[in-house]
Amino acid sequence: MTDLSDSIRLLRTQGVTAPAGFRATGISAGIKASGALDLALVFNEGPDHAAAGVFTRNKVKAAPVLWSQQVLTTGRLRAVLLNSGGANACTGPLGFQDTHASAEAVAAALSDWGTETGAIEVAVCSTGLIGDRLPMDKVLAGVGEIVREMAGGLTGGEEAARAIMTTDTVPKQVALHHQDRWTVGGMAKGAGMLAPSLATMLCVITTDAVADAAALGGALRRATSKTFDRLDVDGSCSTNDTVLLLSSGASEITPSQDDLDAAVLAVCDDLCAQLQADAEGVTKRITVTVTGAADEDDAVTAARVIARDSLVKTALFGSDANWGRVLAAVGMAPVPLDAERISVSFNGFPVCVDSVGAPGAREVDLTGDDIAVTVDLGVGSASASIRTTDLSHAYVEENSAYSS
Amino acid sequence: MTDLSDSIRLLRTQGVTAPAGFRATGISAGIKASGALDLALVFNEGPDHAAAGVFTRNKVKAAPVLWSQQVLTTGRLRAVLLNSGGANACTGPLGFQDTHASAEAVAAALSDWGTETGAIEVAVCSTGLIGDRLPMDKVLAGVGEIVREMAGGLTGGEEAARAIMTTDTVPKQVALHHQDRWTVGGMAKGAGMLAPSLATMLCVITTDAVADAAALGGALRRATSKTFDRLDVDGSCSTNDTVLLLSSGASEITPSQDDLDAAVLAVCDDLCAQLQADAEGVTKRITVTVTGAADEDDAVTAARVIARDSLVKTALFGSDANWGRVLAAVGMAPVPLDAERISVSFNGFPVCVDSVGAPGAREVDLTGDDIAVTVDLGVGSASASIRTTDLSHAYVEENSAYSS
Repeated sequence: MTDLSDSIRLLRTQGVTAPAGFRATGISAGIKASGALDLALVFNEGPDHAAAGVFTRNKVKAAPVLWSQQVLTTGRLRAVLLNSGGANACTGPLGFQDTHASAEAVAAALSDWGTETGAIEVAVCSTGLIGDRLPMDKVLAGVGEIVREMAGGLTGGEEAARAIMTTDTVPKQVALHHQDRWTVGGMAKGAGMLAPSLATMLCVITTDAVADAAALGGALRRATSKTFDRLDVDGSCSTNDTVLLLSSGASEITPSQDDLDAAVLAVCDDLCAQLQADAEGVTKRITVTVTGAADEDDAVTAARVIARDSLVKTALFGSDANWGRVLAAVGMAPVPLDAERISVSFNGFPVCVDSVGAPGAREVDLTGDDIAVTVDLGVGSASASIRTTDLSHAYVEENSAYSS
Repeated sequence: MTDLSDSIRLLRTQGVTAPAGFRATGISAGIKASGALDLALVFNEGPDHAAAGVFTRNKVKAAPVLWSQQVLTTGRLRAVLLNSGGANACTGPLGFQDTHASAEAVAAALSDWGTETGAIEVAVCSTGLIGDRLPMDKVLAGVGEIVREMAGGLTGGEEAARAIMTTDTVPKQVALHHQDRWTVGGMAKGAGMLAPSLATMLCVITTDAVADAAALGGALRRATSKTFDRLDVDGSCSTNDTVLLLSSGASEITPSQDDLDAAVLAVCDDLCAQLQADAEGVTKRITVTVTGAADEDDAVTAARVIARDSLVKTALFGSDANWGRVLAAVGMAPVPLDAERISVSFNGFPVCVDSVGAPGAREVDLTGDDIAVTVDLGVGSASASIRTTDLSHAYVEENSAYSS
């Protein structure tokens, strides 16, 4: 977790409705056969409606990603509709029409309720199995219901966080209260197909700070590049990854860009840790830190290569201090390194010094839930960390029958 | 397997001693605690001693790789010493001295036996756990014994193939007999940490054809680029990968370069199929073919991205026709593709056409041992295949406690 100053406070009991000016809720619209919550709405009452987003870098983009990228060119949003139970990806032009129809339905329902809204002010996010159309009768009926439900009160942030879960086992939300009386709240989902190099998963962040779209966009890009971009569960990047940041301005406080950046970074970082802890089949939370790199990009690249290596990940699942696999992995990273001067430590214990095993290396205790792997490349002074998880039986089990 | 003309015959009951002029054997030198075979020697009686090799592209190279690359600059070899039970990688200058001492011992023993040999004519290959020194007393005693053992006869190719096994469950060898009365034989080991992009694993190929080092080197590079370079079990590239090709000229036949290329390719291709079939934890043999690519390099890159994707590999382990994961994977490949025109088939059945699911896609039967995944990128006419395996419980089990 990011080091927080005394000026801010993080609470995981609150989420997107913690900032003033936001309503949200989650309902069961029948998209999931299980009857679990599957439709969420986040609504910005204003007075401001600035917004920014970052999206998957996958060339295969889901319909809701294409739609939301388009509407965000205006830099403003009134609402975000999110569903689990189906990704609406690889569904062609008809899938895009489904997303558009959902946004139109939200706009109509909000207008009926008294807030004049256009579809262009509604972002849409979907998550679930790739390749199937959504049951639009259920989605459209659900939109009418969710707007009525949301109208009932300001709570509902946690229901929204629950309604976007797929293989997640717990909802993820957090709120940051700044001493200057403005707030940032967020929710996220994601447990597999997590390998950003971009945004990862679905995440909605709200704030009652006064900030225009450019300020929000800058804060969001800087925060995601240090957090979601450095989480890598399985090297697989989703077609639907979306992170949105909406401001209502309801606090009437305009923080400095630095304060806004720090707050958004802290919220993203905390949500990122929650995603890592609930990743599919996780038994170990692993942080791979590369030091001694020529520059920060190289450190990220090398750390990611290690974090994605199946042999490193299975060894750590087995609490096996097989440091040779770390050297074999980093030796393939496309970055400068001194092959005779690589050093590795596990949980702070040196297991390899100058590319040769250190005394006691095989006996390091890795049985705990958290493992810190630190690798020095011996060529510079830059460093970076990637969060990942082990490769376990449960990961294989969970992913061998997802669509059947 | 490569399509073979009538002119050649492949036999898996023979290996490196099938060509005239080669002796080999394997013994138990006590390097492995289990007492299994762990030391092999391949000896070229001549009259020629031309040789070529390809090696791991990992920047972290084991001592025997550094040694063998050095001695091969002469383009000639009399013998190859191979051991399992330890990779002699990440062992520093002392590990390199160990390799050098082994080559000196082989040279001395062969000289005593009557064949004047220098250490510079002896390549060394090692495989096993990374990071530990070899028990040199056992290796050096074993060298004396193995030369005496080899002197006893021309058989022993299979013992050599057995002595280089680590997690392999079966020895891998093959011999190709050309109708023009020359022969190519080969043996290989490797079951995990298999992701060439280079040579992969240990492999020694012998021939009694007359061919100089340049002809051998050309044939070997062309063959490995189409075979071992396109096998990818787990994306992990070893520190010790070595493929050597030795010719004795004992047949007194000089094949055309094309015939030599075809023979070496066929032997490499067959050994590659044997490695795939015995890969760690394999339950499915998967071939990922990318078509419609702008060029062959792009096709290889895209096929490798799909073949390495943990979510694709776990789905196929579960016989789950989850084609959306294939699209999500290929969408991250750093190659041109038309995101609206991707088509996918499983075992010849179209599951996705123009980036949208095809009727019956979820019901394709993938319960057999072999799965063909074909992906058309829609932008060109080049194609290439990568061989891989599924990601199974057995893979996780086998790799979670390798060093303990």
